Amino acid sequence: MFDVIAFDADDTLWHNEHVYRDVQGRIIALLAQYHSAEWIERRMFETEVRNIEHYGYGFKGFTLSMIETAIELTEGRISGAEIGQMIELTREMVKAPVVLLEGVEETLTELSSSYDLMLITKGDLFEQEAKIIRSGLAERFSKIEIVRTKTPETYQALAAKHRLQPERFLMVGNSLKSDILPVVAIGGRAVYIPYETTWAHEVVPEDELAGKDFLRLSHIRELPPLVENLKAKN
Amino acid sequence: MFDVIAFDADDTLWHNEHVYRDVQGRIIALLAQYHSAEWIERRMFETEVRNIEHYGYGFKGFTLSMIETAIELTEGRISGAEIGQMIELTREMVKAPVVLLEGVEETLTELSSSYDLMLITKGDLFEQEAKIIRSGLAERFSKIEIVRTKTPETYQALAAKHRLQPERFLMVGNSLKSDILPVVAIGGRAVYIPYETTWAHEVVPEDELAGKDFLRLSHIRELPPLVENLKAKN
Repeated sequence: MFDVIAFDADDTLWHNEHVYRDVQGRIIALLAQYHSAEWIERRMFETEVRNIEHYGYGFKGFTLSMIETAIELTEGRISGAEIGQMIELTREMVKAPVVLLEGVEETLTELSSSYDLMLITKGDLFEQEAKIIRSGLAERFSKIEIVRTKTPETYQALAAKHRLQPERFLMVGNSLKSDILPVVAIGGRAVYIPYETTWAHEVVPEDELAGKDFLRLSHIRELPPLVENLKAKN
Repeated sequence: MFDVIAFDADDTLWHNEHVYRDVQGRIIALLAQYHSAEWIERRMFETEVRNIEHYGYGFKGFTLSMIETAIELTEGRISGAEIGQMIELTREMVKAPVVLLEGVEETLTELSSSYDLMLITKGDLFEQEAKIIRSGLAERFSKIEIVRTKTPETYQALAAKHRLQPERFLMVGNSLKSDILPVVAIGGRAVYIPYETTWAHEVVPEDELAGKDFLRLSHIRELPPLVENLKAKN
């Protein structure tokens, strides 16, 4: 039924969002003397989203956006020393261990006996490559694609490049915006497995989901039986 | 004689290094009250090189390294407002127009009538994609590869991926370290066209060049006759 089963990486195979939120929490604590946590968080989010067009995704853009917000919020009164502490905090993100979600290894092992597996992750090339290597999962995938953004055009281009028919392509991920809707839009199949938290920028309003044909699981362990089921029905 | 002629991008097809040095010069001027220009420049270079392992290449890592150096050099006394000015200066780099080197368009046009052209650039995915699009050259290349680093292993992997024989592969670039020596190491042919300035980190000591078989041109316009010449001799 499927020629390829493709997986998103961050928060689908390994924990990521909580690394960002943890560092952000520590930066907010550092700025506590200036403003309330809620207000700092809101302004940081606004800066992050506004800067995606300049910086793309990843921890370097995140760091620059945090610094920019801190300068704005303090009207430039924040000291160089405090900004230095922010840079040190964010640099720990690069060294943070890549922690796999529970059940990921067994699921990939099980599926790889019958299917060609692919990894499609968006973000910073340098950072994503490093995480893929540190995850220990690189060998599980016959194809690894690091893309700048995940739109229907991105998936169309990947399908063309690897000569895949969308209807025989299954994408698995935790982001409706990046992993599910664009794949459905080009006629592919998609399995949505929400992570414990979703970055606000990736949230999709309920009404955009109406009539969209995708599957939803609560745990990656449920994927092999689902795939078997789809195959049996076909 | 060649199945593919591949080009580096930054400072081979379009100006890049001077954009960095220009912004760096303006940052150094901003810090003039703290230290001498020479000392600031030296420390900035040290920080940049030390941080490549954390940040990779590209303007976001450059920005973070500049900020880090400024904080260190002033022992944290630099103000948030001054760091804000640094961020604004570096952000102009993203918007800077992509200016082609003289003769690039005609050379690519001429070669593309007989050869398959490829682009191989290292650095930040987000930034390199944006520059490729803005350069207007994307359509000239049948294959575009943005890689994290350019080692012999990188070229070996690209050759395998595209089923290229190294001896039928010609790489053209301005960096001995990234474009020439690693290609020569895997048995490919390479044409070195130095740019007006070379980032110190890419400089190769003379003695490492001894016995290395590569060609050298002073201008990209000389490339089509050189290729013709090589073909005639073969």
